[in-house]
This record gives sequence, structure tokens and C-alpha cells, in this order.
Amino acid sequence: MQNKITGLIAAPFTPMNRDGSVNLNMIPPYANKLKNDGLKGVFICGTTGEGMLMTGEERKNVAERWIAEQSDDFNVIVHVGTTSAKQSNELAQHAQSAGAYAVGCMGPAFLQPARVEELVGFSAEVAAGSPQLPFYYYHIPNVSGIRLSMSEFIKQAPRKIPNFAGIKFTDNNFMEMQQCINQDGGKWDILHGYDELLLAGLAFGAKGAVGSTYNFMAPLYSDIISDFIKGNIEAARQKQLKSVKIITILNQYGGAIVVGKRLMKTLGIDCGNFRLPVSEFNEDSYEQLINDLNSEEFFEIRNT
Amino acid sequence: MQNKITGLIAAPFTPMNRDGSVNLNMIPPYANKLKNDGLKGVFICGTTGEGMLMTGEERKNVAERWIAEQSDDFNVIVHVGTTSAKQSNELAQHAQSAGAYAVGCMGPAFLQPARVEELVGFSAEVAAGSPQLPFYYYHIPNVSGIRLSMSEFIKQAPRKIPNFAGIKFTDNNFMEMQQCINQDGGKWDILHGYDELLLAGLAFGAKGAVGSTYNFMAPLYSDIISDFIKGNIEAARQKQLKSVKIITILNQYGGAIVVGKRLMKTLGIDCGNFRLPVSEFNEDSYEQLINDLNSEEFFEIRNT
Amino acid sequence: MQNKITGLIAAPFTPMNRDGSVNLNMIPPYANKLKNDGLKGVFICGTTGEGMLMTGEERKNVAERWIAEQSDDFNVIVHVGTTSAKQSNELAQHAQSAGAYAVGCMGPAFLQPARVEELVGFSAEVAAGSPQLPFYYYHIPNVSGIRLSMSEFIKQAPRKIPNFAGIKFTDNNFMEMQQCINQDGGKWDILHGYDELLLAGLAFGAKGAVGSTYNFMAPLYSDIISDFIKGNIEAARQKQLKSVKIITILNQYGGAIVVGKRLMKTLGIDCGNFRLPVSEFNEDSYEQLINDLNSEEFFEIRNT
Amino acid sequence: MQNKITGLIAAPFTPMNRDGSVNLNMIPPYANKLKNDGLKGVFICGTTGEGMLMTGEERKNVAERWIAEQSDDFNVIVHVGTTSAKQSNELAQHAQSAGAYAVGCMGPAFLQPARVEELVGFSAEVAAGSPQLPFYYYHIPNVSGIRLSMSEFIKQAPRKIPNFAGIKFTDNNFMEMQQCINQDGGKWDILHGYDELLLAGLAFGAKGAVGSTYNFMAPLYSDIISDFIKGNIEAARQKQLKSVKIITILNQYGGAIVVGKRLMKTLGIDCGNFRLPVSEFNEDSYEQLINDLNSEEFFEIRNT
Repeated sequence: MQNKITGLIAAPFTPMNRDGSVNLNMIPPYANKLKNDGLKGVFICGTTGEGMLMTGEERKNVAERWIAEQSDDFNVIVHVGTTSAKQSNELAQHAQSAGAYAVGCMGPAFLQPARVEELVGFSAEVAAGSPQLPFYYYHIPNVSGIRLSMSEFIKQAPRKIPNFAGIKFTDNNFMEMQQCINQDGGKWDILHGYDELLLAGLAFGAKGAVGSTYNFMAPLYSDIISDFIKGNIEAARQKQLKSVKIITILNQYGGAIVVGKRLMKTLGIDCGNFRLPVSEFNEDSYEQLINDLNSEEFFEIRNT
Repeated sequence: MQNKITGLIAAPFTPMNRDGSVNLNMIPPYANKLKNDGLKGVFICGTTGEGMLMTGEERKNVAERWIAEQSDDFNVIVHVGTTSAKQSNELAQHAQSAGAYAVGCMGPAFLQPARVEELVGFSAEVAAGSPQLPFYYYHIPNVSGIRLSMSEFIKQAPRKIPNFAGIKFTDNNFMEMQQCINQDGGKWDILHGYDELLLAGLAFGAKGAVGSTYNFMAPLYSDIISDFIKGNIEAARQKQLKSVKIITILNQYGGAIVVGKRLMKTLGIDCGNFRLPVSEFNEDSYEQLINDLNSEEFFEIRNT
Repeated sequence: MQNKITGLIAAPFTPMNRDGSVNLNMIPPYANKLKNDGLKGVFICGTTGEGMLMTGEERKNVAERWIAEQSDDFNVIVHVGTTSAKQSNELAQHAQSAGAYAVGCMGPAFLQPARVEELVGFSAEVAAGSPQLPFYYYHIPNVSGIRLSMSEFIKQAPRKIPNFAGIKFTDNNFMEMQQCINQDGGKWDILHGYDELLLAGLAFGAKGAVGSTYNFMAPLYSDIISDFIKGNIEAARQKQLKSVKIITILNQYGGAIVVGKRLMKTLGIDCGNFRLPVSEFNEDSYEQLINDLNSEEFFEIRNT
Repeated sequence: MQNKITGLIAAPFTPMNRDGSVNLNMIPPYANKLKNDGLKGVFICGTTGEGMLMTGEERKNVAERWIAEQSDDFNVIVHVGTTSAKQSNELAQHAQSAGAYAVGCMGPAFLQPARVEELVGFSAEVAAGSPQLPFYYYHIPNVSGIRLSMSEFIKQAPRKIPNFAGIKFTDNNFMEMQQCINQDGGKWDILHGYDELLLAGLAFGAKGAVGSTYNFMAPLYSDIISDFIKGNIEAARQKQLKSVKIITILNQYGGAIVVGKRLMKTLGIDCGNFRLPVSEFNEDSYEQLINDLNSEEFFEIRNT
């Protein structure tokens, strides 16, 4: 039985300078904040991290800086997904040689596979670039557009991907999630993906979770996990509801990732703006955003 | 604070004769089976009940026979949804005069409303037909095609629908479900809809649930609820997994409702076939189906 | 070889009174206007006609009044689609006994068929109600939600539907339309459905067309047809562009059917409002609408 | 008024070796074949050309080899689309320095823009890499997943993209196509995209077309254009129907691009297989494919 990830993994924003270049120097203090907030690691260069908006060179630089912050308690999973298995394989090679804990890879949004076999084949070509590292398929149909059965994927993947470790499961289909968690006697590591539904993932047996709001309110979710483990469901439910209310606010101001990146600056880690085609946060609405967040006691979550 | 439904409500199949006419005489023994299985009532003439495949006259006849079986412990909710608010209003009038416990109504699949205001307006015209009965909006986007925000619906509905009671929530969007459950201090009755995910609904605070597999394996779900209440999550999870495995089998043989109707005959309540455009169960695969169900110990669930 | 429809068929609005009841008395003058505009008939109680927002009784009344206006040059096709094959069969029986020219039927939006066989089966049950009348399947996936292959449908339908005549084809998939037009040596009657693309239908060989904007600007489309037949493509193209510009305006004010119903009043045929869940035209924008239409010389189309 | 492309532009396959590397040496004979077939140029590294399945280095190499074949009668348009505006800008810079005729760019399939402003912004950043070359936006919602209004795009684009030339329009929405063709007095170059519907594009005024089946049956389409210009619609229609029948066959054997790449080998230009995640053509079905194509007289199209 392989190692499984337990606890919270942040999907960090990639810090950018005013001129749109990557701000590597912000990564060490960012890592420090996340460690202080109790996170067990990071899943970098994914959706929140604007992975596919960057060049390969930029992604390698970002990976190296995060890996420099790695420790036994703080793992770095490098997302290597692109639309090209060859490019992704190169990024996987780099991640392994740079010392990452694991790699993750989204399915290709261009010429999307129509059959599970094709997706497994694509993933296998990528995973072969980092044979020493655990490989996580990143299932996020609302981003990749790939809506293939994960219960079928998890049956086929181990035969073609020797370093297959599991799935980062970012979808509402909890029937499939249950199937994946319980496949092969619970052998695979299925990471929960939607922060606002963490309690459902826990109920179905997830032990680890990757998310973007863990960047700025991880302690709230840590409490959900500990309340759940203690059997205090009502307390967990109230905290989950608080996360839902805050995410609802973020959605009203431009979406959890756009507004989340802006909030990092408020919390002392200036990550700059998103790259195109993602719109910038509208600064004119900043004061109102803060008022709304105060009404949900956002700043009283004990963030570092 | 209004009354809320707790426990399991079956969405019964509508029994049909070999010639395709409705078999009203099967309803009393059917009701008896469900009562013995511990169900708290039925939601009739909905999706599983082929409501919109029947004529208005047939639906009224079906409603009357179920209402004749109603008791303090066994409530009949009549689904009155059609594509026409006028027709549905007539069915709601009938439900009230016939003595139903409540009415439910799906949004119209024809000229689907594009805005919540329109859906509330449609629902209000229907609900006005049964002003003395609680009115439940039936949210099931995969059937109605209406993907409007339920958190917005539940804000607007009470102003226009004096007898608004809540929502039968059959969707994977558990963020919205949490918002609805907690709206107005938890005033509204939000009924969980996807049987294979009951444990998630419970985790988020649902108390009642409506489903089609409660027709033939309700005791399994009753145990999930009692395990959950006792704090025995692992036991609840294992039983939920059993339901997932059985539903997976049903899906392989034609879908939970088509195969489910066939299973009712096996369990002694012959409900006949579905009407067009739904395909009949393929009898050639019956033996294999039973083998597969036996491998999951389906028949050892203590059904009546 | 059966008779085929040539020229323009209007999809009339159903006139409503202020209290929401059907205004049958407006039908004779409405029919008169359409005859004077050169229309070859009407396709009643379809999408534009709010068919499924009415009760069966109302639809029969509407059908009888239109059929009273029928003549050798002005055919009445009765749309009988509902979500229930049994109800639609009854409406088809009525249409035949009332003397309609043909019946049309959309596929069921509730428990939508997943396979062509199921859709053909549903259609066959409906068509059996009017065995003496030509039967047209009404393909309009954006309304019915049924996206099955029409090239496959037209292969299977004749074997199960003795009175099968063709398809009212309201979709952008012109590859399928070409296949249908040319199936079985061009035997079937394929009616073009999207007014703003009439020229494409003509290019691919359509001879007849059914549409909602033919209610209020048929002469423009008659000219497109005659220009096309004469080989004057550039003239046809300019008139098609005029229709596109006008429909663009209608879309800006609430959609071609909502605004179209309002325009009928302007043109002397007061058809009232749409029923719920369709929103009313916003009268506050009427003056601006008329200005915009004047800028495209809408009122100089030689309508009656 | 800028130059517009008239006639047929092929979207070439990218030749691959057996080991999956790019086979640059096949490009000169490929170009020769296309010139002999009467094509006016190529749109390289797009959907058919597996653009985003290649690395940036591979794409530059492919572009250089095609540009070496460029002439006054044979233009090379380089597709530079990726998910990253920065990467695409680099590819655009290369295309300009290498001497391409124009660049084209699909919208980003990752973090897809939700508003036209965002798509214009992304495109502007790409187009700025090749300021001396005409820039074509590549609209293909079934591949990119971006379903924004092109009639709105074409209004906003010229203000932000000084070298904006037009749109490669690969969609069934011919209402928008008409709006784009006629915007600003017909100033922009709107290239027709769906080969099986070329006749519709011609009817609405398109003068140039880009497509994958022009690789192996361009003369058929050249005849459609000349028949259309002569006013011989019926002849054009029959040839379009022939293209529809052949594409139907290709779809039955794995899709027009997968089977098309195999057919190139049959026609003497061995382009190898597609890269993952696209499946290989199944050689076991080759004989049957050829039989089917013979029944439609595919090989009697006067290809070089």
C-alpha cells in the first residue's frame, strides 16, 4: 500500500509582478505562510496556479522555487498538464530531477479524448517522464472539458501507468468518487477537490484535499476535519456553511480564484493579477468586498 | 415553523397493465409493502412515476388510489408538474380536494424559463391551485433541463407562493443545497434527492429524502440514517457503498428506473413496463442481472 | 411520391385575451392577413403557438378555428406534441376528425429518448391517431432537448410510421438536413425551420419552410425564394441580411417570439401576451423597438 | 480595404514518422500535391495539424518548412494558438520572422474567457507578436469550447488588434457568420470552415474556405465554387452531397481527421498517425473503408 496524503494541500496562486512576469521571490514567504497555517503541501501550476497560461520555462522556475521550500511535512506536487503529452512529459522529467514529491496532470483540453483508453494513454505518456514519482490524474471536467468515467479510468490506469497513485477529484459526481475511493480495496489516493463540499468528501472517506481557498482560510477547513473526526458533525456543518458563505461572496466579486488572488495581497502575500484571458479584480469594488467578508467574520479565521 | 418531512419517501413506479393502461389495483398492496419497509410516504407521478407520460385523467385516478392508503404515518405528495401551468393548476386543485398531504411540481421542460422570476411565476400559478397544501418545487435539472439557481429561487419563492414549503432537491450541486437548507434560519424543508449520495445530504443537514431505490431497498437507507445519527460514519459509508454498487448494476442493465420497475415484479409487486419513449427492460438479461445483484447481496436487504 | 409543401408556412402565435384565455375570435382575421401575405398555410400550436402551455381542450378549440379557415391554397398542420404519447395520440385523432391537412409532433421533453428507436416508437404511437394524415416529425433540439440523428430517424421512421411524410427541421445541422433531403431519392418532405437561414435551406434543396417571423414579414422571404429561383443570389443575400438584422433587434428586446407577438398587435392582429413561464414584452421599450425597426425599414416590407 | 483570401486553403495534417517525431521531409511533396490540386495555401498547425499536441520547437520547424514552399499563389497561414498568450505571442513572432503570410489563433481552451472583452484581450496579446502580418481569429467552439458571440467579437477586435484581418469561422451559426461578413461594409475576411456546408457559406457570401478534406478532395470543392459562381446551384448541390456522403463514411471509420490522415498515405503522402490522445486508425477496417469510398467514387475525384 502506497503512501496517502492526509490533510490539506493548497493550490497556490502563482505570484506575478506588475509587468506580468513571474515573481519568484514571493514564493518563500508564501510557503512560510502556508506552513504556519498547517498545510501539508502544495499542488502547484494547476488551475489556480495559472499553469497553462505560463511557458514551460516559467513553470520550471516556479517548480524549483517551491521545491526549495519542501520538507518532510510540506510536499510539493507539480502539475505538468498541457495540451501536449510531449511537453507534459518534459515537465514531468524536470519535476523528478528537481526533487518534487509527486506530479499531477490534467487531461488535454485540445482534441479531448472521447474514450477512457485514450485518456489513459495520454496520461501514461506523461507519467513516463517521472517514473520515480507518484502520478495523480487531475480530474476537473469544468476546466478540462473531459467528462469521462473516473471509475473506469481507475480500473484501467494501473495497468498502463506503473507509478499511478490516484486522482485529484474536482467534480460533483460523488457516486464516482465513492467508487474510486473503494476501488481495489481502497488502494488509491483520491484527493477531494471542491472546498465548499469538503464535508461530503470526508463523509465518503476522503483523507486529503486540494483547494484554492486553503490559501487564505485553511484553519477553517482544518477545524472541519477535526470536528468530523471527533464525530461533531453539527460543528463541522456550521464551519462548512461559513466557507460556503464566503465563497458565495467571492463568486459575486469575480470568482473564487480571481478574488482569492486579490485577497492574498490583503493577507500580506502580494501575488499580483491573473494573466489573460482572466480578468483582473475590479479594485473599485474592494471596499465593498471587505465589508461583505467582515460580515462573515472572514478575517477572524486564525490565518497566519 | 412548518412541519418538515423526516425519513424516507418513495417515488413509486406507476403500475401498468400488459395493455399499457394504469393498473390501479396494484396500488394498495404496493402501499402496504412500502409501509412495511418503513417508508414515511410517497411522492407520486414524478419522474419515476412516469407522471408526464400519463393523461390528466390517469394521474387523478392514480392520486386517488394512493390517497386512499394515506395515514398519519404515511403521507402522499402528488406531483402535478406538466408543461402547462394551467394543467398543473388543475391537477393541484384535484390533489387538494382528494386530500393529499402536499403537492410537488417540476419546472416546465417546454419553453424553459431563463430567469428565476419566470420559474417562480410559473410555480406560483400552479401552487395557487392547492392553497391549503404545502407546495414543494421539484428541482431536477437533468430531467427538466432547468438549471436556475435554487439559492435564488428560495429567496424569491416565499413572496409569491404563500404555501411554499421547500424543495425536492435532485441535483449534485451541494453548495446550493447547503444554502437552501440554511436559508431563513433553516425554515424550509429541503428533501434530498439522489439516493446514491444520501450520506452527503445527511452530512449537510437534510432530514428527509425522496428516491426511487427506496421502493426496493429502503431498509438499507434507513440503516444509513440511523448509523449516521449514532455517529457511526464508517458503517453508514459501507451501506452507502452497497447502494452505489447496486445502482451501478442497475445502470448497466438499462438504468435505475427501468430496471427498478422490473425488480418490483421480482419482489411481488408487478408494475409492468414503462411507457414510450422509455425502453422496456430486456428480459434476456434478467438472469444475469439477478446473478449480479446476488453478488452484492441485494436480496438479503430485509425488504418485506 | 407524396405531395410536398412548397413556399412559406407560418407558425402562428396563439391569440390570448387579457385574462389569459384563448382568443378564438382573432383567428379568422389572422388567417386572412396570412393569406394576403402569400402564406401557403399554418403550423399551429407549436413552439411559437405555445402549444404545450395550453390544455388539450384549448388546443382542440384552436385547431378547429384554424381549420375553418383552411382552403386548397392554405393548409393547416396541427402540432400535437406533448410529453405523453397517449395525449398526443388523442390530439392527432382530433386533428384528423376536424379535417386538418397534416399533423406534426415534437419529441417528448420529459424522459427524453436516448436512442432513435425510442423516438420512432413514440412518434409511431402518436401518428397512429391520425392514419389518414401526413405525419411530420418536428425536430427542434433547442426546444425539445432531443439531439438524436435525423439521418438515422429518417431511415427508421417509414418502417414504423405508415403515414410518415417528413421532418420540420429546425436546427443548424445542415449536414443532416442534406442527408434527409436526399434520403430515398428525395422522397420525404423536409421543411426548413430557421428563418434567418432560409437561404441555406434553399441552397441545399428545401422547397418549403415553416417559421415564426413569416407571421409579420413573409413578403421579404417570398422575395428571397423568388430571387433564389431566378439565380439572383446577391439580391436574395441582401434580403436575408435584412431578416438577420431585424431578428437581431427582436433578440435584443426579448427574443423573436416574445417581441413578435407584440408586433402582431402593431400590425392589427392583437394576440395578447405569452403565458408563463415566458415573460411579457416590456412595454417601456416599445418606442425604442419601433425606432430600431424603422432604421431597418421593417414597416416598409409590404405586409398586408 | 485589405486583401482577402479567395478559394480553398487546406488545413494540412502534420506528417509524423513511425517513432512519433515530426517528418519534415514529407512537407515539400505534400505542398506540391496541394498546389497541383489548385489550393491557394495552407493553414498549418491548427486542429487537423495537431498544433497543440506539438512542442513549440516542433511547430516552428513545421512552419519553416511550409514557408519554404510558399509562393505568390500559395500562402502559408501559421496557427499559433496555445493555452498561453505568451507562448502564442512567441510563435507569432517566429511566424513573422520566418516570412509567413498571416497568423491565426484559436482562443484558449484553459480558463476559457467568459466575456468577449477577455477573448479580444488574449487575441491582442498574441497578435502583437506579428504586427506586420494579418491576424485571423480561429473560431471553432467545438474544439476550443469558447462559445462567445463572433458578431460582438468583430465589433471589438479592430480597436484592440491593429492587424486584425478576420475570422476563420468553423461553426454552424450562420446567422453570426452573415453578421460578420457584412460588418463594417464587408471589410473583414471571413473564411468558411465546415467543408460539408461550403455551399451555405458561398450562399451567404464567403469567398475563401479552410478545411481538412481539401487535403484529399479539393477538386470536388473547386467545382462547387465554380458551379455556384455560374449559377448552377443544382450541380453544386450534387457535389456538396457527394462530399457529405464521403464525410459520413469517414465519420463511421473514426472521424474525418483520423481517417483523413490515413487516406493521405493511400494518396501517396504518408503522414503517419495522430499523436495521443487521438486514437490511431484501425487498419483492420481499411479494406472496408476503401470499398465504401469506392461506392461513392471517391478515387475518381481528379486528385493529383
